[in-house]
Amino acid sequence: MTDLPKHVEIHEEGPREGFQIEPGPISTADKIRVIEALAETGLSHIQACSFVSPRIVPGWADAEDVVAGFTPKEGVDYTALWFNASGLNRALVFRNKLSITGSIALCASDAFTQKNLHRSHADNVEAMKKQTALHLENNVAVPRIGVMAAFGCNYQGDVAPAEVIRTLEDGLAIAAEAGAEIKYFSLADTMGWATPMRIERGIGEVRSRWPDMKIALHLHDTRGLAIANAHAALKLGVTQFDSTVGGLGGCPFAGQPLAAGNICTEELVLLCEEMGIDTGIDLDALIEVGRMAEVIVGHVLPSELVHAGSLDAFRRKAAA
Amino acid sequence: MTDLPKHVEIHEEGPREGFQIEPGPISTADKIRVIEALAETGLSHIQACSFVSPRIVPGWADAEDVVAGFTPKEGVDYTALWFNASGLNRALVFRNKLSITGSIALCASDAFTQKNLHRSHADNVEAMKKQTALHLENNVAVPRIGVMAAFGCNYQGDVAPAEVIRTLEDGLAIAAEAGAEIKYFSLADTMGWATPMRIERGIGEVRSRWPDMKIALHLHDTRGLAIANAHAALKLGVTQFDSTVGGLGGCPFAGQPLAAGNICTEELVLLCEEMGIDTGIDLDALIEVGRMAEVIVGHVLPSELVHAGSLDAFRRKAAA
Repeated sequence: MTDLPKHVEIHEEGPREGFQIEPGPISTADKIRVIEALAETGLSHIQACSFVSPRIVPGWADAEDVVAGFTPKEGVDYTALWFNASGLNRALVFRNKLSITGSIALCASDAFTQKNLHRSHADNVEAMKKQTALHLENNVAVPRIGVMAAFGCNYQGDVAPAEVIRTLEDGLAIAAEAGAEIKYFSLADTMGWATPMRIERGIGEVRSRWPDMKIALHLHDTRGLAIANAHAALKLGVTQFDSTVGGLGGCPFAGQPLAAGNICTEELVLLCEEMGIDTGIDLDALIEVGRMAEVIVGHVLPSELVHAGSLDAFRRKAAA
Repeated sequence: MTDLPKHVEIHEEGPREGFQIEPGPISTADKIRVIEALAETGLSHIQACSFVSPRIVPGWADAEDVVAGFTPKEGVDYTALWFNASGLNRALVFRNKLSITGSIALCASDAFTQKNLHRSHADNVEAMKKQTALHLENNVAVPRIGVMAAFGCNYQGDVAPAEVIRTLEDGLAIAAEAGAEIKYFSLADTMGWATPMRIERGIGEVRSRWPDMKIALHLHDTRGLAIANAHAALKLGVTQFDSTVGGLGGCPFAGQPLAAGNICTEELVLLCEEMGIDTGIDLDALIEVGRMAEVIVGHVLPSELVHAGSLDAFRRKAAA
């Protein structure tokens, strides 16, 4: 009936996305508690922190303490985010605990590059060349090209698939020059411009150009369409998604202080599991982590499912 | 590429669903303000109130004042809800202002019928026979069979399409006996059990049985999947949806006090318009009503779009 994949790989970014944005302060112990609880749900990829300037992102001033503090679970890949040499060096200290890989991070919207990074696309390409070389010098593989604003931009408007393809070509040129082996593209709907139709077209055109490249999606629920977009992507056979427990996160840098964050992990898992797609995740355990996160941040999170409970929980009650 | 319809008819139920559930108190004047503002957005169907027992639903004790108070806009159908002879009589007073039609309201889950109406399905069928006769005696057409819990039930678990079909057969038998001409079926995902796959199967099986009957959907966002379900339905050519501005409403009767309400009108309109499906609705005007409703109820509503703003608003800014 459909081309639904058998298994989907979910990369949990709740700790990193959420704790950087929440006004907090959130204690190091609470961050560790969430990371450890997430690992117990069956998630295989957890982004644990951001090695960024504590001046710009005070919520991650304790990144070292968090990474040093959590007890890793076997079989789980813990990742981190950084944007420069200083961040990379901080991450490399934890080489034995974190899965350290680099990314060529570009943006399909020049206006957003300017607003977000205060540089032109050309300057960003130069910066990424240097960063990619730096990664490889440090024996850090760079398997990923990430494209932000891949479906539209609050500052530029619609973003055509051709602009995404041009951006990916720039990324591949950077990789080729540096000798990095790209394993997948990650398309980000940074400001919530995607619709199922734009997902179909965007992924369709990228696939036509690079039929064998794996595509991952990073969806935001800024305008409430993330789960419909994920469903459209699942039907196209997309098998890797970033998401955040409880819908932690947000988009404070895009001029929308109240805007929702990433697609909610629980709802993505519900969608997958109810459609027969395995995620390896225990949804009820994950919902409990969402509830824990809600208590920790001290306000209601966007996840509806966290408030309603899973279907399986009600099935068990009904059968009892 | 798809079977998307050209036009979709959206029945706004925010006033009725929202104001019955909000702890309030919400003033009669504010209710009228929302109803009048909704009519200015291009919505053609607005459910204005519920004629129910003020003891059970204190939020609608002022139903008469609200209906008497709003100035109707030409071309807009204003409807109301009632459950018994007393409610019908109250509605009939406003025959010249409201569009008064009846419904045969059944439930695909016996457990929910028992919990919600405190009677068995058989007793509910008897009650609906009497109510249908009463409607027709009062020259009130009964064009609709509504099926609650059509995709699953918190008290019973999964609901198979065969149970929906059996329920619809009961409804058609009631209609035939009374001489009511049924124009459409309305399938309600009362407790948020639908998934895109269950939408496809449920609608598919009902359509196989009654190929010429129009099907409308009443979706709840209890577990965050409503917009994905709406998208699946649009692809099947479903052209009529109930929804609520801001996502007003909830499901207090189903044991989920924190659960989300109906699918949000703004997000449904965004999905439709961005996919080239006409709704006749001015999305930016509707978002303003969502913001007004949020101020009136005094808390954040589930709509993400109300907080983020429409894509067209950002397109205009980007182009300026």
